[in-house]
Amino acid sequence: MEILKERIRQNGRIIGDEILRVDSFLNHQIDVKLLQEMAEAIKTRFQDKEITKIMTIEASGIAIGCFVAQVFDVPLVFARKSQSKSLPPLVYTAKVESFTHHKISDIMISEEFLGAGDKILIVDDFLANGAALTGLISLVEAAGAELVGVSIAIEKAFQPGGSTLREQGVEIYSLARIASMSETDGIVFAPDI
Amino acid sequence: MEILKERIRQNGRIIGDEILRVDSFLNHQIDVKLLQEMAEAIKTRFQDKEITKIMTIEASGIAIGCFVAQVFDVPLVFARKSQSKSLPPLVYTAKVESFTHHKISDIMISEEFLGAGDKILIVDDFLANGAALTGLISLVEAAGAELVGVSIAIEKAFQPGGSTLREQGVEIYSLARIASMSETDGIVFAPDI
Repeated sequence: MEILKERIRQNGRIIGDEILRVDSFLNHQIDVKLLQEMAEAIKTRFQDKEITKIMTIEASGIAIGCFVAQVFDVPLVFARKSQSKSLPPLVYTAKVESFTHHKISDIMISEEFLGAGDKILIVDDFLANGAALTGLISLVEAAGAELVGVSIAIEKAFQPGGSTLREQGVEIYSLARIASMSETDGIVFAPDI
Repeated sequence: MEILKERIRQNGRIIGDEILRVDSFLNHQIDVKLLQEMAEAIKTRFQDKEITKIMTIEASGIAIGCFVAQVFDVPLVFARKSQSKSLPPLVYTAKVESFTHHKISDIMISEEFLGAGDKILIVDDFLANGAALTGLISLVEAAGAELVGVSIAIEKAFQPGGSTLREQGVEIYSLARIASMSETDGIVFAPDI
């Protein structure tokens, strides 16, 4: 998606060889218009599929998840990372190691909001090693729901998550795929898939 | 806001005397249409005020924050609770004790996204003791930004956060104010303010 790639070129900041800061528009400050356009692009890609629910993970997936749920006119459900008193007792759980935080979290979704009849599109802001995505897919499988596909804002294609999951048969549409990046040479995008 | 109160009556679940679960529509599964209507009501209340940015806190404030930012046509910025490698080094910080998690978090917003020219509307899902809101207001003050007002989905009016902050001069518009609740007697709403 050219508009997102251009925004990454303009406002993304590379730290070292692996960290891309996009907090001015995607995951700290949110550019609502950009996210609406991203949601429209995702809708176009999956428009011939039946989707009953959008699924993501807190916190950075929620914003893109909201706008994708809006264009598909279905609910959003987001996996939570910690047990809250306000969460129900019956949950599907998985363990996820965060790439940016280096800690293992239990993620969970209430059994009430994910079930055998659901056709799920997972969305998230980043795909790198695929840990969060693998955890979310395991929740979909545990619930007996159908995984229709995955859509990601920014895929770090130089890390193995995307290729590993595609080899397993998961349809992943990433709006911007980064082939390589460095502080000195900038960003090289990979072709869309 | 009657539509939200009716939804709380129908789908809210009271646990003990203080916990209200609204995870079927507000903070685990998201009813996009309901949140859009809530955002419109907030827009109506603050339509004569100049607002340059919506501000909230991860994770449960992000969804309502997105739709409020959409109707005001301004960016959303959400305070983060943990230091991430992808956050910038210069941040405003405050300490917040979570009512539902019983732990103290450092919350932070990048200095890049909150500044002296900003006119801020803070939104969040719940107001109880006002800890999160007090922390967010301190970030606004630290940045030299102007706090225009606050809008909350559900205020537990039997807890002191709302009255304390209103006495300090903060304009708070809560879409549903709960006067009392219990598992046996259900929910009694307080008048709108």
